[in-house]
Amino acid sequence: MRIETYFTVPEVDVGTLAGATVVVIDVVSATTTIIEALANGAQGIYPTHSTEDAVRLASSLGREDTLLCGERRGGKIEGFDLGNSPGEFTAEAVGGKKLVMSTTNATKALVVGEEGARVLPCAFTNLGAVAREVAGDEHVVIVCAGHDDRFSLDDALCAGYLIQGVAEAREGEPEFNDAARAASALASARKPTRRFLGLTGAGAALVEIGLGHDLEICADIDRHDIVVVMSDQAIRRSGD
Amino acid sequence: MRIETYFTVPEVDVGTLAGATVVVIDVVSATTTIIEALANGAQGIYPTHSTEDAVRLASSLGREDTLLCGERRGGKIEGFDLGNSPGEFTAEAVGGKKLVMSTTNATKALVVGEEGARVLPCAFTNLGAVAREVAGDEHVVIVCAGHDDRFSLDDALCAGYLIQGVAEAREGEPEFNDAARAASALASARKPTRRFLGLTGAGAALVEIGLGHDLEICADIDRHDIVVVMSDQAIRRSGD
Repeated sequence: MRIETYFTVPEVDVGTLAGATVVVIDVVSATTTIIEALANGAQGIYPTHSTEDAVRLASSLGREDTLLCGERRGGKIEGFDLGNSPGEFTAEAVGGKKLVMSTTNATKALVVGEEGARVLPCAFTNLGAVAREVAGDEHVVIVCAGHDDRFSLDDALCAGYLIQGVAEAREGEPEFNDAARAASALASARKPTRRFLGLTGAGAALVEIGLGHDLEICADIDRHDIVVVMSDQAIRRSGD
Repeated sequence: MRIETYFTVPEVDVGTLAGATVVVIDVVSATTTIIEALANGAQGIYPTHSTEDAVRLASSLGREDTLLCGERRGGKIEGFDLGNSPGEFTAEAVGGKKLVMSTTNATKALVVGEEGARVLPCAFTNLGAVAREVAGDEHVVIVCAGHDDRFSLDDALCAGYLIQGVAEAREGEPEFNDAARAASALASARKPTRRFLGLTGAGAALVEIGLGHDLEICADIDRHDIVVVMSDQAIRRSGD
């Protein structure tokens, strides 16, 4: 088994993804929010690069059972139904709905991931389920969404925990690239507490706009025992 | 004090470098080789992107006291005087000479660094001297050269050791960006032994072409008590 990690999307060697399982991580907050919504009964999530794309897609999906989700500078976007805060994605709010989600960094990573055999969004909240799901695969590529094509500590730490989870779930040490080895070392040295996530760039930005409580959910390891899969531009629970 | 780290050159926020001390790291092997050459009496090092640029520059500097250095796929380049292996840069070979060095990744990082107030190439071999040199600065930006714009573990680990060295040399914890925090955690978890460097992408590539012994020098912390500075496209010992 070979596990590669990329800390930013432009580093991904797209030509090598054929046949690989691609895991996409954006802890604060896109993949945490995606896991939360699907665990709480959303039918499917449609990630888009921009709010304009989101509005267009929502109108083509049919507005009655579709929710528009996304935030800009911490505020809900005018005309949107939900922001980007995982706590908003309750069963009451999202059960049975299609969610169009405007989220730049994660969408970029998911689109690159589609070059692989399958794409699994992952966060601390479904870490164990993803680790078990990919433990039998030959080639796993973990793509951290990062922030504006820069390193994000929350994503790297989650990648490290995932790698350690996979290593525990199988026999024999996998092969690693440099970033996978670094992420694994990082996971030996630091824990994803709410406090620690609050020190990261993305976490500190949430705290600053009064959404620090989101970090409780982001840091809640194995909150949900679900695997979610991106296919045909939509993310659904595995098996749905 | 604020310490930022970038694991790849494209991540550097060039617009924020004004006034900063920029430390450039390319452990395997450009900055290790540069430190080795200047510690052993080279007059100055002129890094270039390509072998063609190197040949042009050497002829304009005057060929009699200039050496052409660089490697391609582990071999010395035809017509060049030295390769890229730190062990070749002995006092006998380089004393009093100008060295034109073809080294793509490091040159890219050094050029970006010139947007700052000063640029200090750094490796494990002069870590302590650099840490003391920058400990009083307000804004230190550590740029890892990486490999083909991708994360390199050897550079990241060296950045982490430097950060820990700076933190020890002063009072009060510096402010960090995400990558600086990650590098520091990495340095708590791993040691730059020859064996560990041999597991990195760059180190394994050296071992494969029979240059594994270079890693002894690359891993030799504080082998030299010198600070070197890039200015006017040349790198010289500080004070020279």
